[in-house]
Amino acid sequence: MHFRPLHALLAAAFLCAAPAALATEQTDDMVTPSAATEAPSAWVTLGTVGGPQPVANRNEPANLLLVGNDAHLVDVGDGAATSMIRAGVQYADLRSIWISHIHFDHIGGLFGVLGLRLQTRTETPLTIYGPPGTQEIVDGLLAAMQPSARSGFGVPGEQSIDPAASITVRELDDGDVVNLGSDTVRVANNTHYSFEAGTPEEEYYRSLSFRFDLADRSIVYTGDTGPSEAVTELARGADMLVTEVIDLEHTMRRIRANAQNMPSPVVEQMRQHLSTHHVTTDDIGRMAQAAGVGQVVVTHFAGGANSSATGLARYVAEIKVHYDGPVQVANDMDQF
Amino acid sequence: MHFRPLHALLAAAFLCAAPAALATEQTDDMVTPSAATEAPSAWVTLGTVGGPQPVANRNEPANLLLVGNDAHLVDVGDGAATSMIRAGVQYADLRSIWISHIHFDHIGGLFGVLGLRLQTRTETPLTIYGPPGTQEIVDGLLAAMQPSARSGFGVPGEQSIDPAASITVRELDDGDVVNLGSDTVRVANNTHYSFEAGTPEEEYYRSLSFRFDLADRSIVYTGDTGPSEAVTELARGADMLVTEVIDLEHTMRRIRANAQNMPSPVVEQMRQHLSTHHVTTDDIGRMAQAAGVGQVVVTHFAGGANSSATGLARYVAEIKVHYDGPVQVANDMDQF
Repeated sequence: MHFRPLHALLAAAFLCAAPAALATEQTDDMVTPSAATEAPSAWVTLGTVGGPQPVANRNEPANLLLVGNDAHLVDVGDGAATSMIRAGVQYADLRSIWISHIHFDHIGGLFGVLGLRLQTRTETPLTIYGPPGTQEIVDGLLAAMQPSARSGFGVPGEQSIDPAASITVRELDDGDVVNLGSDTVRVANNTHYSFEAGTPEEEYYRSLSFRFDLADRSIVYTGDTGPSEAVTELARGADMLVTEVIDLEHTMRRIRANAQNMPSPVVEQMRQHLSTHHVTTDDIGRMAQAAGVGQVVVTHFAGGANSSATGLARYVAEIKVHYDGPVQVANDMDQF
Repeated sequence: MHFRPLHALLAAAFLCAAPAALATEQTDDMVTPSAATEAPSAWVTLGTVGGPQPVANRNEPANLLLVGNDAHLVDVGDGAATSMIRAGVQYADLRSIWISHIHFDHIGGLFGVLGLRLQTRTETPLTIYGPPGTQEIVDGLLAAMQPSARSGFGVPGEQSIDPAASITVRELDDGDVVNLGSDTVRVANNTHYSFEAGTPEEEYYRSLSFRFDLADRSIVYTGDTGPSEAVTELARGADMLVTEVIDLEHTMRRIRANAQNMPSPVVEQMRQHLSTHHVTTDDIGRMAQAAGVGQVVVTHFAGGANSSATGLARYVAEIKVHYDGPVQVANDMDQF
């Protein structure tokens, strides 16, 4: 092996990443790209609960898509860097990040990923895909990384890395198609936002669903969405639908219990909004059946049971009322 | 109770934070400040391993200082927001954040904390204390929060919150004294950085240790430091010393095993740097004894055992060679 400059070795060693980083480099040399792409793809649900209120047993939304030696993050909730490494991915393996929408429960971990990646002096190209606003977000994070990049490990003579040098941002909109190596990603606007048509907000802000057409299968990720014909169309014939869920009745019960004086019209407005920004088990069953997907994976639990076996089994049973295929409930670090 | 505007209620409810947020507001009304400050302080080690390489069983550096109803984060590693809430703190309880130095394993979770706090529409004042560079970091993060702040929950008519409105930054240097309510925080530069004297880097960049003098006790947090007379002086007579540690010999063995061709002078340089930027059990024992602290809590494990009972017991035994008082090894979510 050849030696990197002393400051790079020191930099890694100071924080104990040297052994892992070196091991990764050696491994990379031994695996050819062609062999890598033949491995089956994997979808790892790193975080499976909707935020912004963290819960005890599930992390906020983040997923890993593994294709050969390449790793892709799909949403980046708080703690995503830690979860990604725990799933066996090294910083240098990360090729792209896909942001479904810019709520902080889906992007809260982005600074950690970019910063820790820099701290290991990882300079492999990384593309960040997301809705309009993503460039502004990443620009802010890169600006926030500058003092740490300049000071590095506090070693005299250390050569600093420009945080922006390896990062590309591409903002997406409805109907976009992205080539990801030999694979294809298709993008659809969904109904998680309900700005009024024709307003500047409606013109600009997007919540996106993604379809990953890979060599071995197709995976659709709803992100956060209400019932949406566009998402159903995106999912048509897909092998796997990874979908959010809301337990609307449970959420409404909690709201009523915590705000007993809330006027009925306000309660009704809340129900209306919740039911159009998120999907219930009923919505999921109908969407999955209409799209003819091969299997359903439920994640991003919101408002209801997220740990009890009975509660989770109820989600599956309710989805199966309308959908004939297999349904699985995701836990953190599950692989599909 | 009075009702907040519909968009605020909706905002919280969309992401299931409404019940918690409402409950918190009610609780706040019932507790008087004077009663609150009489409760004993608590130090919670949210994350106890040095980064940037996450490990399976410990999160990256973050701590909570709880004084009455007030919560203070001391370093903010990846996933700190999730850990903070799991420790029972609500976003509105967070009064200040203390950054020891700007390595990403100590600040990777800051965007998550600020963003998720905004997503629950928390507007209580929050002060971020840290070394030079902190203002630039926070400015970047606040800029990165703008698109999400503007688009909010995607509800027509929602009133957006300026992410910067409730945030104050105060940069610190050696000898600074900060009043935190009726408590006092003292600041000392430590030796985690080794820029050459007189260089611009040495003039600007700081790694800090903090001493919290509270009503019921005094706590010194080393952050990352090498052996340092300033830190020993800061810790003089403190009730509790929360210190980092490096297992230097284990780290050097791993480096040698992973880079067997590394020339001896390079190995020796690495040892030299590691031993001056971090403290070994030997250093800790001598520092604790010289300062006469009441107890030692070891965190920020780097390079050696971090899970086996035997390995952890060895840290304690080695520190006790020089130090007469009690020594505890911290795990994530331990309270001291």
